Amino acid sequence: MNEQTPFRLPAIEATSNAALAARLRHKIDHKTKPLGALGALEDLALQLGLIQRQESITLREPQMVVFAADHGIAAEGVSAYPQAVTVQMVGNMLAGGAAINVFARQHGFALRVVDAGVAAELPAHPQLLPRKIGYGTKNLCQGPAMSRDQAKAALSAGMHVLQALPGNVVALGEMGIANTSPAALLLARLAGTRIEDATGRGTGLDDPQLLHKQDVLRRALARHPMSQPLDVLGVLAALGGFEIAMMAGAMLQAASERRVVLVDGFIAGAAALVAHALVPAVRDYLVFCHRSAETGHRQLLARLEAKPLLELDLRLGEGTGALLAWPLVQSAANFLNEMASFESAGVSQK
Amino acid sequence: MNEQTPFRLPAIEATSNAALAARLRHKIDHKTKPLGALGALEDLALQLGLIQRQESITLREPQMVVFAADHGIAAEGVSAYPQAVTVQMVGNMLAGGAAINVFARQHGFALRVVDAGVAAELPAHPQLLPRKIGYGTKNLCQGPAMSRDQAKAALSAGMHVLQALPGNVVALGEMGIANTSPAALLLARLAGTRIEDATGRGTGLDDPQLLHKQDVLRRALARHPMSQPLDVLGVLAALGGFEIAMMAGAMLQAASERRVVLVDGFIAGAAALVAHALVPAVRDYLVFCHRSAETGHRQLLARLEAKPLLELDLRLGEGTGALLAWPLVQSAANFLNEMASFESAGVSQK
Repeated sequence: MNEQTPFRLPAIEATSNAALAARLRHKIDHKTKPLGALGALEDLALQLGLIQRQESITLREPQMVVFAADHGIAAEGVSAYPQAVTVQMVGNMLAGGAAINVFARQHGFALRVVDAGVAAELPAHPQLLPRKIGYGTKNLCQGPAMSRDQAKAALSAGMHVLQALPGNVVALGEMGIANTSPAALLLARLAGTRIEDATGRGTGLDDPQLLHKQDVLRRALARHPMSQPLDVLGVLAALGGFEIAMMAGAMLQAASERRVVLVDGFIAGAAALVAHALVPAVRDYLVFCHRSAETGHRQLLARLEAKPLLELDLRLGEGTGALLAWPLVQSAANFLNEMASFESAGVSQK
Repeated sequence: MNEQTPFRLPAIEATSNAALAARLRHKIDHKTKPLGALGALEDLALQLGLIQRQESITLREPQMVVFAADHGIAAEGVSAYPQAVTVQMVGNMLAGGAAINVFARQHGFALRVVDAGVAAELPAHPQLLPRKIGYGTKNLCQGPAMSRDQAKAALSAGMHVLQALPGNVVALGEMGIANTSPAALLLARLAGTRIEDATGRGTGLDDPQLLHKQDVLRRALARHPMSQPLDVLGVLAALGGFEIAMMAGAMLQAASERRVVLVDGFIAGAAALVAHALVPAVRDYLVFCHRSAETGHRQLLARLEAKPLLELDLRLGEGTGALLAWPLVQSAANFLNEMASFESAGVSQK
């Protein structure tokens, strides 16, 4: 893919609306339950109402998009699995055998896999969207992971993929051997997190492998010093990945269309960090679905002031955490839409 | 109700089976994901497999049962709501307007409400099972909450209610103004938790009301000194509630039939504590669905070595936390049943 059209970030409207928020709070507080008794679901219902500018929520045609890409930094031995697993897992997803397929079927999500930059030719498949920016990024220990033009092209491709989707809910996930490394680097650079706090075991590194990964990432970060003022596109190009950039673009586009965005784990979180650095208002549309077991995810979520719905020690990616949390999003909508009020049910208040 | 038949606890078989557990672990570990990457869902899949004595899980006709009762201790001013709310909320549930109705509809659970001992006559309704043990318990600050015969009758009634249900999954919840008080007392007596650690704000007490509740509960506990050896039925009669006793009976019966039991929050947890004290093997069949915001629930779960699926600051009861967690139980079954293995998908291992 070679996209030379001028690059424009989508305009995103913040969801804040004091009058609507007050009406939503009143509706939530008058449901037949003690004040606040539905906990996190109440905050979620408020967020959904503000996104949809309604006091009742309609969630339609939820879409799951998995962005797959390879990473030059895999050559540094930062992953427990060989790079070939990326293309093999894409095949597994297109054959319906991966965890994300199981959960997409369970919850009625249409599933698409985007080739954002897998280091192999992928045969055509009805569920595969070929948007390859390159055959994997370059090894960012030796130079930028991608050019600025590639970063723009990836953001644009993510925006276009999203634009073509039906529905008003989208879940975004990824597959890419070694992609906890660029995610950790983006966290380190965009949030100031120390490498030892940003770097985890990914798919299962042991202690010496983890120390090695930290060394590699420290070296990589030093190779790409920070500019003042912060050049987000430059950071993304230097330290990112094609799937991360595309997810960030998809998040921005989704928010500009006022869709609900289900954010999966650490890698999707890094994409959210990039999207947020580009257009802060995107944050209002993001539902953070789970806190993963990956070191660094806690800091990442704190940076985005996100309290995720689930904490199940997941560390699989693909979007699995987003789909596992989806029924809670529906529940938040349903209680807001369907529960009786104290008045309508004739129940005494405090 | 006046049940004078001789009382027998159901026999429950522990689920432990080393050979089956090894086969399940092997199946889980060879799915196309990093080892352990589905976190808590993997432990849950193992538990489900052991309950069903199968390497594949079948979950059918899930049932929701809400046990409702009143509590004499409400007269001590330990709840933020008047006692009349119990009967009003039963009416709301039978009319379909409560939170539990919304989530039962969402997840396809048949819903029944059991009158375990509401302090009012309840008009007949197709979804209402009249199993009234009494018009609320007595004020346990002045004597035992119920007689030993009533405790037995409540346990039996819970067993019989459960026995008549179809399916192999049951979620148990409750409604009963002031019932965090007996739950806290059962936790204090059966687990040795201090009153200040067992006692929470229930439906929304302020600081002075919470201190008053703690005083009342300390007084109540002192009024019913502990016997040696522990007389569980006596503790239940002295400090319990009709809905709690019935839920305990239902849990025991469900476990004896190898059903999966979805345990809701603090009150259902207290019933689990009672059931476990009566027949420890019941524990194997219990899926702890959420950790509530109620003080004491953390200690209760620790006592039962339970790591719940959700932590959403819920404090509503009714069984809402159990139903919100249900899709995760299905996901655990689905990934075990449906995901491809490394071998079948041709994906490289570490």
